[in-house]
Order: sequence, then structure tokens, then C-alpha cells
Amino acid sequence: MSAAVPGAVPFRELKVDALIVSALPNIRYLTGFTGDNALAVATPDSITLFTDPRFTIQAGEECSCKTVTVAKGGLEPAAAELVRKKKWKRIGFESTRLAYDSYHRLKGALPPGAALKPLAGAVERLRMIKSADELARIRQSVLTNSRAFANTVRGLRPGLTEFEIAAQLEFEMRRFGGEKAAFDSIVAAGDRSALPHARPTGRRISNDELLLIDMGTCQDGYMSDMTRVLFLGRPPQRLRNMYKAVAEAQLAAIDAVRPGVTAGEVDRKARRVLESHGLGKAFVHSTGHGLGLEIHEPPRIGRKDPTKLDAGMTITIEPGAYVEGFGGIRIEDTVVVTRAGCEVLTPTSKEFMLL
Amino acid sequence: MSAAVPGAVPFRELKVDALIVSALPNIRYLTGFTGDNALAVATPDSITLFTDPRFTIQAGEECSCKTVTVAKGGLEPAAAELVRKKKWKRIGFESTRLAYDSYHRLKGALPPGAALKPLAGAVERLRMIKSADELARIRQSVLTNSRAFANTVRGLRPGLTEFEIAAQLEFEMRRFGGEKAAFDSIVAAGDRSALPHARPTGRRISNDELLLIDMGTCQDGYMSDMTRVLFLGRPPQRLRNMYKAVAEAQLAAIDAVRPGVTAGEVDRKARRVLESHGLGKAFVHSTGHGLGLEIHEPPRIGRKDPTKLDAGMTITIEPGAYVEGFGGIRIEDTVVVTRAGCEVLTPTSKEFMLL
Repeated sequence: MSAAVPGAVPFRELKVDALIVSALPNIRYLTGFTGDNALAVATPDSITLFTDPRFTIQAGEECSCKTVTVAKGGLEPAAAELVRKKKWKRIGFESTRLAYDSYHRLKGALPPGAALKPLAGAVERLRMIKSADELARIRQSVLTNSRAFANTVRGLRPGLTEFEIAAQLEFEMRRFGGEKAAFDSIVAAGDRSALPHARPTGRRISNDELLLIDMGTCQDGYMSDMTRVLFLGRPPQRLRNMYKAVAEAQLAAIDAVRPGVTAGEVDRKARRVLESHGLGKAFVHSTGHGLGLEIHEPPRIGRKDPTKLDAGMTITIEPGAYVEGFGGIRIEDTVVVTRAGCEVLTPTSKEFMLL
Repeated sequence: MSAAVPGAVPFRELKVDALIVSALPNIRYLTGFTGDNALAVATPDSITLFTDPRFTIQAGEECSCKTVTVAKGGLEPAAAELVRKKKWKRIGFESTRLAYDSYHRLKGALPPGAALKPLAGAVERLRMIKSADELARIRQSVLTNSRAFANTVRGLRPGLTEFEIAAQLEFEMRRFGGEKAAFDSIVAAGDRSALPHARPTGRRISNDELLLIDMGTCQDGYMSDMTRVLFLGRPPQRLRNMYKAVAEAQLAAIDAVRPGVTAGEVDRKARRVLESHGLGKAFVHSTGHGLGLEIHEPPRIGRKDPTKLDAGMTITIEPGAYVEGFGGIRIEDTVVVTRAGCEVLTPTSKEFMLL
């Protein structure tokens, strides 16, 4: 079930004998385990999964690595006991993913002589480059997502609530094989589209207004992400101009995606286009983010991210412009970096959809 | 929008001047903010919310407290700056909810003389006792959940996949006003019911097998949780006996719920019944958990939790028995502790449902 080669953790470069992995998506990546309580201890030669009795059968089915069921005393002491037995001295831990208290529980259980070293993002860095198997899953997830969108749009009519549209989107995702939504679907009508993270409400959609839909599917553990904006009727010129500017920014950013370019450079491409249309301040977020086992993963396609893009990375490109009391436009695709540049995985048209 | 009185944080008892709140459900409880990036600084007289520009409009709509938009530099330094200005000295933080790295970022930004004190569960303890408004929302969430279950069960027939059943459950939740599923619905057919946390698969349900459904709705931010087990046909005697034993354990635990009883005592009631039926080792988890803004909250209805139950707490009661390769039974209700004992909120019958 594991999508990766655990041996790929660069232990020598990280200068640790073992890495204690606490973030569940990282554990899934290294071991295949999909339950929601676990710690994994990875070394150059082995990986051991610690979980509780609720997941004994599941771990047996999902993992090819050694698994230990901890009935009493917690996972941290059990992991520390392995460290003691093996006499490992330099122990990395996931400092952005481990809570302060868990860190101290772990530290308290380790033998004297074993030192904890904060490491952030070691497994996340491996996860940036997707394997062929992972890419196939992401493609499938993107396809399901676009199918769910198409089927839902077909049934759109004034009078439906944002709630009902979100329910339909998520039902369609499941019909096409998705496990669930990758995140709370955003369905925002009228000036609510100006809230970049609006939650669906009981508001009914009506003629002559915007409808922003931001949706993702989780399928086989892997995420997709897409935003499209529709208008019920004939949009006013100001909105058409805003749409054009955002579309231009999105295409400019996509055009910049290739191996060797930094995430920050891609972000700047989108930002410059919006600035040239007087919408610089209306673009209140980053241009995109990596996605895979999580909906937000490195790299961040933001002003300051120095990560160089590389073939096999999957990212979103999603510039937007938001004007309070008026409306918001965002256009988002899921994209994979290729050797030659990039491939837009999202098959849905990005014309301004008029219903 | 805020469901609580922030003044209720016991600052004097906690011996801090201010509490830095990092867990999003705790922030929502204290401020009403529902976005997904924030820190809040609470004091006896005030609360200040820090968030990023994506949420400026939303924070303005949702919060009556002071809100600060942080465009650059991160939320921790902005919160630390407030501490410096106000000359607060003793600063509590949520040690089970703050990552090791965030703690160090916060610590690095605080003025000399300000000391961080690890506090775990301060807001969670307040949240254990639900207000009338919160209880009304939980009742509604429970009702929606049971309606979604009833509508889905009506359409059950051999040949449906676990996936399709989960999709229908979640669609029905939304139809009745839920925002989303409270957690990944569990739909486990046949011997997969022996996995306490099974994920739905493409497996088709067929005659003469078990079907375990564990589902929860999130409505208006509040969770419900229910498990029922059905059988398509005539169950063998061994399963009937297992069902009876679990039902007896569940009723015994419910019967024990009242103010003053500890969570551990309630757990023991269920455990003893299952032990008396030779199923002690088949009961691999706790009897239940608190729920509210989160699907798992204190108290934990487990062997060792010394929390005394009190009126206004909402908890699940969900003993189970799991036999690998054979099947699993779990029966779960959402329950509120009352002055006189408790009220089972879940209206769904808990007879062994035969289809």
C-alpha cells in the first residue's frame, strides 16, 4: 500500500540515526497506514509503526513494515523503548507537527544519551515529487472532481441554496469514486464570493449574480482542487474585466511553471498581471500550493517560497481578486510540473460560465 | 456568534495574565471565528483575534471582539507584540495544541520578562459543559443524523457498495441542514465490521451479512455521532448473542450516567457486562467520548478518566465487540448528562435491524 520508498529519507544529510514520524500523512506515505493514531520510527534499514488496539487488524492489512500495538502507556514511550533497545543516539522529530506536550513526553521517555533534533519537513520534502502511482491517483482525483462539477452545474437553477449545491457536488464526487471532499466545498453566491474561504449557507442563488465554486476530491487518499466562477445571466462589464484579468494572471503563472523556476517567481507572474489591472491589493492570498496526500503541502506558490519547481510536483495555480461588497473571482487548476514545463490536469473549461 | 462567555476562563486559578489560544475550535468557542488560520489572546477583560488577510471580512462578520489582520511576519509575533504593549508577564499557552516550532517562534518574539506557561485543556474544560444554545445545536445535529440514517436505510439493497451507502448518508445529512459529515462515515460490510475504524470500500453488500454504520453530522458547527448494525437476512445465533451482549453493555453504561459519577465508572459498567459474556478482550476501545465543536472532546469515557460527569455534558456511549474474520458489533448514542441522570438524544431504534 505504501506509495514511496522509505529508504529515501536522507538520514546521513539530516545527521540522525532515526526519525520519529508523527504527522499522519507522513506515516501513511512511509508505511501505507491510514488509521488516525500512530507514530512511526524510521531508520536507514527499517520502519516500525506504533498504533493502538483499535487499529491492529487494519495495520496488519495495510503495512508491510513491522507494526507494534500499544495497549497501555502511550505511543511515545513505546517508540522511546525501541530507541533504547537499539541504542540510537540522534533522534529526529517533526518539529512543526509534534505538539509541545508530546515532545516533552517523548523527551522524558528517552534514555539518557539519546538527543532529540528538531527536523521540519523532512518527509514533506520527499512527498513533493510524486511517484507514477501517486500521479495516477491525483489524475483520477482531478477527473472525478471535474465530473462532479459538470454534473452539478447541469442541474443549477435559481432558487437552489449554496448548501444544496455543495451537497450535490460532494454526492457526485462519491458517485465517481471519491472517498470524500478534499476540504469543505466553497459555494459562494453574489457578494459572498468576495470571502476567499466562504462556507456554504442557506442563501438561494438568483439571477444576475456570481457563483464561485471551489471544490476538491479526495480519492484513494489523494487530493484535487479546482475553482470556477459562474454567472447567472449577463455579467456587468466590471465583472467581465475582473474575470479577464484573473484569467490572464492564471495563464501567465501556468506559463511560468517549469523545472528550475522558483515558486516565488510563479507567484510574481500572477501578481504582476493583477497589479497591471489595478487589482494588486485585491489579490489577498498566494498563487497556489502543493497537493497530494494533503490538500496543502509544500511548496507554497507564494511571494517568498524559494523552492525550485521540479518534474513530478503537483501544485495548484489559483490567483483571485476580491472586492468587498461587490464580488470575488478565482480561477484554479491542478497542475503537474513536467520536464518540459507543466501539464494542466484539470479538464474543465475556464471560460466565464454564463448560465 | 460566540457560544460562550470568554470571561469564564479562570485566569486567577490558572495564574496567568493572558492565554494564547491556538486551537481553532477553542478560538471559535471564544470568538465565533470559523476561519482556519488564527490565534487569539484572551485576558480577564478582553479578547483579540489575529488572522490573515484572507479572513478579514469574515472575521469582521463573525466576531464581536477586537480583530487584527496580520499581513506579514506571522501570527505569533503579532500576538507577542500585544503582550509587549500591555506588559503582561505570565502568558499561558495550549501545550497539547501548539506545535513545538510555533512554541519556539512565540517564545522568541516575546519581550524579556514575559514567561510562557504550558496550560493544557483550559478552554476544553469550559467547553465540556454546553450552554442552552449549544445543546440546541447538538440536538438538531443528532436529529439530522438520524433522519439521514433512516432515509438511507430505506434504500438499502444487496449490490450497493459501501462507498455508495456512505455517499447517500452524507447527501442526506446535507439535505436536512448538516454542513458536512462530522467524520469519515464508516460503512463496513461482513467481516470488515470487525475493523472499528473501517473506511468504506467498493465492496458490495450482500445477503446474509452484517452492515455496520457509524456516522455523524456537523451542523451549525456542532457534532453528532451514532452507530447502528444491520443484518441482511437472518443472523446466526452467535451474532445475535453478540448483539445482545453489546446492547446490554450499552444500556448498563447509559444507566450509570449521572452527575457525580466518573467517566471511568461508566466505562467499567459497559466493560463488566461484556466481560460477563466472554467478550472483554473483544472490546478494544473506550466506551465513549465528549463531543461538541469537535467530534472528540473531553471527557473520554475510558477506564482511567477521573472526570466527574456533570449536567450539560454531551457524550457518546458506544461499547463494541470485534472478532477478526467474523464481524463486529457497536451500538452508539449521543447522550446529554442532566441533573437527574441523562437523556439519550439519538432517536433511532437500537433493535438489531434485519433487512
